[in-house]
Order: sequence, then structure tokens, then C-alpha cells
Amino acid sequence: RVNGDRLWDSLMDMAKIGPGIAGGNNRQTLTDADAQGRSLFKKWCDDAGLTMGVDRMGTMFATRPGTDPDALPVYVGSHLDTQPTGGKYDGVLGVLAALEVVRTMNDLGIKTKHPIVVTNWTNEEGARFAPAMLASGVFAGVHSLDFAYNRRDPEGNLFGDELKRIGWVGDEEVGARKMHAYFEYHIEQGPILEAEEKQIGVVTHCQGLWWLEFTLTGKEAHTGSTPMNLRVNAGLAMARILEMVQGVAMGEQPGAVGGVGQVFFSPNSRNVLPGKVVFTVDIRSPDKEKLDRMRAKIEAKAPEITDALGVGCSIEAIGHFEPITFDPKLVTSVREAAERLGYSHMNIISGAGHDACWAAKVAPATMVMCPCVGGLSHNEAEEISKEWAMAGADVLFHAVVETAEI
Amino acid sequence: RVNGDRLWDSLMDMAKIGPGIAGGNNRQTLTDADAQGRSLFKKWCDDAGLTMGVDRMGTMFATRPGTDPDALPVYVGSHLDTQPTGGKYDGVLGVLAALEVVRTMNDLGIKTKHPIVVTNWTNEEGARFAPAMLASGVFAGVHSLDFAYNRRDPEGNLFGDELKRIGWVGDEEVGARKMHAYFEYHIEQGPILEAEEKQIGVVTHCQGLWWLEFTLTGKEAHTGSTPMNLRVNAGLAMARILEMVQGVAMGEQPGAVGGVGQVFFSPNSRNVLPGKVVFTVDIRSPDKEKLDRMRAKIEAKAPEITDALGVGCSIEAIGHFEPITFDPKLVTSVREAAERLGYSHMNIISGAGHDACWAAKVAPATMVMCPCVGGLSHNEAEEISKEWAMAGADVLFHAVVETAEI
Ligand SMILES: NC(=O)NCCC(=O)O
Ligand SMILES: NC(=O)NCCC(=O)O
Repeated sequence: RVNGDRLWDSLMDMAKIGPGIAGGNNRQTLTDADAQGRSLFKKWCDDAGLTMGVDRMGTMFATRPGTDPDALPVYVGSHLDTQPTGGKYDGVLGVLAALEVVRTMNDLGIKTKHPIVVTNWTNEEGARFAPAMLASGVFAGVHSLDFAYNRRDPEGNLFGDELKRIGWVGDEEVGARKMHAYFEYHIEQGPILEAEEKQIGVVTHCQGLWWLEFTLTGKEAHTGSTPMNLRVNAGLAMARILEMVQGVAMGEQPGAVGGVGQVFFSPNSRNVLPGKVVFTVDIRSPDKEKLDRMRAKIEAKAPEITDALGVGCSIEAIGHFEPITFDPKLVTSVREAAERLGYSHMNIISGAGHDACWAAKVAPATMVMCPCVGGLSHNEAEEISKEWAMAGADVLFHAVVETAEI
Repeated sequence: RVNGDRLWDSLMDMAKIGPGIAGGNNRQTLTDADAQGRSLFKKWCDDAGLTMGVDRMGTMFATRPGTDPDALPVYVGSHLDTQPTGGKYDGVLGVLAALEVVRTMNDLGIKTKHPIVVTNWTNEEGARFAPAMLASGVFAGVHSLDFAYNRRDPEGNLFGDELKRIGWVGDEEVGARKMHAYFEYHIEQGPILEAEEKQIGVVTHCQGLWWLEFTLTGKEAHTGSTPMNLRVNAGLAMARILEMVQGVAMGEQPGAVGGVGQVFFSPNSRNVLPGKVVFTVDIRSPDKEKLDRMRAKIEAKAPEITDALGVGCSIEAIGHFEPITFDPKLVTSVREAAERLGYSHMNIISGAGHDACWAAKVAPATMVMCPCVGGLSHNEAEEISKEWAMAGADVLFHAVVETAEI
């Protein structure tokens, strides 16, 4: 079993970097806080005797050597970046539990045939730079390095410039590493495990996603002196599209979600009808047909809404991954580890996207999940218990060591 | 007649300060650009032999003396501040035409019994600090100085601090000045005069306004892993309220408008359902009963919408003025001036709020309007012709000189 207190202490130490205002964290990718988090993590890796490699996306790979020089490594990780008002566990738990796995192996003097690589992927959240899971996407060949470097945050800063600014451009070619297997441990971010009173989620699938960025063009005009019939009201069009997206998602129940987290009005002045409204629709389903049907419905209905108002509408797909089926052999190793350790468990589909989804494109991959209070995530109030954190780390430890072969 | 070329040149010179990106201006109140605009205006006033007084709200009063030491002044003005993506004429035309009136009087050696005071009111737009027409509101006793000083811009800066920072806190008590009359010349900001092919709008009324600031409280949660039935979706509630406001305004046609220019999502991240959505509803009508009925309907229906979604809703009225009837005698003097000068004219109700509305509370007041292309305002593309600008300035000149008595 892992050392749960040590894992918990590390989580709490990391949470001091980029503290939020309500108990969570704001350690968005490629900020100064991210750089501080990386330094602390590097120090811990050094202390554990790991060798740090960094690729040109800034992803950190900390290696514990194996006994067979020809054996490909088992990768274990997640991400240290957070949402602007994120929790202390989303991503962080996966990285620090991976570290705890090697710390425990060190304590117990366990040697494995395959090396173990503790991994911190850059920009998983996609909050500052869309899309999410950017570095693992480049690693898996889904995006080019050039595409990634040219992503912009809302202030217009380039990903490539910011990566350089915080000093984490590595020299490794992205995706050059080959994996024997990839494991990721994460909080569920949904309500199922807690409701079902299970300690462990055995993650068999991950639902797919489309991010559709809408740019609506209205006519900037005075809210007072512009008669209703002369308005080209991009704000009203946005409102109708939000309602339509809600209807499309409800029409595909169960097994589908749809909503909007980000809206920008321009010029965003109280007495100016917006000339431009930009917002992103987030739709997901574990069923590829449903997912693509939702996109098609939204893309068909939106122009009807905007045309009726004379508003211009352009839609760009700025994020996408298909539903993923994780590697059956690794899934079984997770389930058997939970069983062996006496933890209650159930199969689960990940509602959120994870670096494991892209890793699954280039290697056998799977995930382990633990419950979180009220299913709450992407919220500073995100919470888990030490016992929950520990149980998942134990399962991770067993599955990883088994896969890396003693 | 005034010197139309001189007026136009001054408009173009002022437009160089705080230029926009598409031909308009961003000279928001109490910014460095506002300070530069004030300095240029002061220099012009000095050159015209006027004496500058400044009150504690930063409003600028440039006096041309009258012949009767006991006669109250005739005030003529508007505002030099703009929207973030504002035009070159909204407000500016009124201030610089007032200056042109005294320049023309100087040219012609006209002396009047009543002094003339060219006026630049602080923060008419209300874009940076709500409410609009703030300084004239304090002048008229509608707001306290303390209320005004404690207004905050979206970055949290206080009005009082920013006024001090740009160096325009005057020593005059606000509202101490008494007015014989107040005139304001403004572009229509609506489509009527152009459509009716009239050169002059004789402004008989101004419609009333409510600004209702909504704060909706949802539950910040992951867009992917939060099932539809567990969402507390403040964004969806906002969308439904926008549609409801549209319906309420349409239900009061003709003679009513309603819309939303400003929306803030929090944390405004693509994969986070918003925990908070703040937006401002702007409703207006020249009919007080309609105006108040719209407010009552909106305030009754909004909680039904939010309750159904479990979203919290608080509504604060952050801006208000009642419909105004301008002084019949001054209105007549404007109409007769237009007639005398041979300009086509019609009665019109102002769709936008103006400092004249507050001045009307403490003095006889009225306005002159000229058309603007396509009725467009609060848009960098706002446009008028030199001929339109000149015609209104001629009418202003005649009405002001008549009221100030030769
Ligand atoms: N796990 C997680 O929140 N990832 C961010 C990408 C997503 O929105 O699913
Ligand atoms: N004239 C003008 O645009 N004033 C701003 C206040 C309003 O929104 O009516």
C-alpha cells in the first residue's frame, strides 16, 4: 500500500501554489504559478531519484529506470495546471499519486523490468489556451507543434511565447517517446461513484467532445435610440442558440450533455447592442453517433436562428475528441487490483476528457477514478477525502507495478 | 450663421485623441485620453476668451460674460467622453458646437445680457462607470457626490480616484451654479430624421430608462461530467431572461425598447458551467406607465425562470431616469430658429438619455438634433455630414443668442 499521508501532504503543499480565493487553485497553464508548481514537482522528482526529461511542449517526464534496457516504460501521470477557479485535485492527484507510486517502490525496494515515467502534461485544462489536452494531443500526433505554439489566450498571448517565458521549452521531440502502457488516476468530476458508494471507478471509456466556437455578428447600436425592428441583435441570437443547445442535449438523453461556459460580448457596454458575441458550445457523449448528431443538429439550427435576426454566424470546431475505449487488458488489471485490495468498485465512463484519451491513440491506456464530493469539479470547492485519494493510489500502484513486471 | 468648416475641423482634431480602430473613438471617461481631450478643449476655450470653472465632478464650465451682472447664464453643452467603441460625434458635437456658438459671437461682436457657459459634463456615457449622465445627475441633486465617487469600473477602480488621477477634481460645489436655460445639441442616434429627410429634430421629450443589473448564481461545475439534471445553469437562465426581456419589449410596441449590452460569465472558461452571470437589462419608453410596467413584468418573470432552474437571482436598479418633457418656451425657440433659417424640421423624442434630462430638473432645458447615417451610434462607424452638423449648430446659435438676449 502507498503512504497516504505523504500523498496528502504533497497535495496540500502543491495547493499552496496559485491559491484560489475560496480554497481552490488558480494555477493556469504557463503562468508564473504553473512555473512554481513545476519547480516544486521537479524537486520532488529529484529527491525520489528520477531523471527529468522535458519535451518541446513543456511536458515533464520523470523516469525511474527498469531492469531491462530494451523494455519500453510504463507512463503514469496527469496534469498540474488548473482552471481559473479550479480545485486542488483535478489533475494534481494523478501526478502526485504517480510520484507516490515510485516513492513507495523506492521504500519497498521494488525493481521492475519496465521503467516507470511520472508525467506532467502541459495545458490539459484548455482554459487559457484551447483546446484542452493540448500537449498530449501533440504527443499523439493529433495536433502539430506549430498549431499548439500558435494557440492564443484571451489576452492574445501565444502558447509558444508563454512556454518560453516561463522557461519550460524542453529539447525532446514531442511524441518521440514510445510507451509500454499509460495509466492516469483522476477524480471522477461527476456524481456517480459517490452516489453508488464505490471507492474505485474502473474507467472503461471516455465520452467524446466537440467544442464549437460561435462568432455572431450583429450591428453595434444604441440600446435606447435603436427601434426594436431595426436591431441586428447578436445577444438575442446567442440567447436563442443557448436554449437550442439545451434542447438538443435534452433530446439525446440519457448519455449526452451540452452547455456553454464562455461568452464574450463586444464591446460589452450596457447601452450598446453587441456588434459581436463569441461563445463556445461544449457537447459530449460516449456514443459517437449521438455526439456527431448533436453537432449536426446545432449546426443546422443555429443559422435558422441567426438568419431570422439578420445576424451573421460562423462556427469553428476548436476542440474535438472521439469517444475512447480503454485497453481491455489494462482495464482488467485495474479491476483486479481493486478486487485484490478489497476496495469497492464499478465500471465507469469518464465524463471529462483526459490526457489518457490521447495517450490511448499511441499506446495501451487506461484510468483509475476516485469519487469527489457532490460530483463537483471545475470549482474551488472541489473536495475528496484522504481515504478516497489513498484507495485509488493503492490501485494505481498495484496495476502499474503489475504492468511494469517485477 | 456659424463657421461650419471651423466646427468640422475642431471635431476632426478632437477625434485624433483616443482614436478607435475603425474610425471612431475610445475616449472613455477619466482615462488618459479623456484628460488629453479636456486639455485641448480648455485650450480652445482659453483662445476664445472664456473663463474656465471646474466642479468637484470634473465638469468643465467655460464662461463668456454677459452685460448684466445679475443675469443667470445660458448653459450650452454636452460631453466629450465616448463609448469604448464610440463614434466621433456622440456628445462631442454638442460641446464643440457650443464652442462654435461663442466663437461666432466673438466674430460678430455679439454681446448678450446673459452670460453663455460652454459645458463639458463628466461621464455622460456610463460605459466605464454606471450610471450614465453621472455628473449632471449629481448637479441636479439626483445623486450624491459620495455616490458618484464610489462608482467602480469593471477593473474595480473608483470614480473618485480616477478623477483625481487625471487631475480634474475642481473646487466648485456641484450644482451650486444656477441656470437661466440649458441647451444641448446632439446627433439623433436613431433613424427617424434621416428617414423623414429632416435637417433638424426639435426635441420635445426624452424617453425614460431603467438599467436592471442581474446577478445570477449557479453552480460552477464541469461541462462534461455534470449530468444535465444536476446542473444549476446560470448561463441558461441568462439566455431565458434575454428572450423574456425581448418579449416584454415587443409586447409594449410601439414606443418601448429593451435589450442587453453587457454580459459577464464567471469564471468564463469553456469547460466550466458558470457559477455567476452578471448582465444589465436596458429598457426605455417615453411613456412612464409603459416603462414601469416593463420593469414590473421583468422583475416578476425573471424569478420564475431562475427558480425553475434552481438559479439564484438578484436584481439591482443601477440606472434610471423618468421620461422628460422639455421646456415649451425653449422648444419653441428652437423650432422658430429652424424655421427662420429655412431648415426642414420635425418634433422628435430622444431615444437616448442626455445631460439635458438632468438639467431639465433644475432649469428650463431643451435639445437640438441632427440626423446620423443609418441611425447608427455607439458604433465607430457613426457618421454625419458637415452640412448636417452645421445646420444644427446654426439653429443652436440662434436659439441660444435669442434666449441670452442681445
Ligand atoms: N479533466 C478535465 O477537466 N479535463 C479538461 C478537459 C475537459 O473539458 O474535459
Ligand atoms: N446619448 C447617449 O448615448 N447617452 C448615454 C446614455 C444612454 O444610454 O442613453
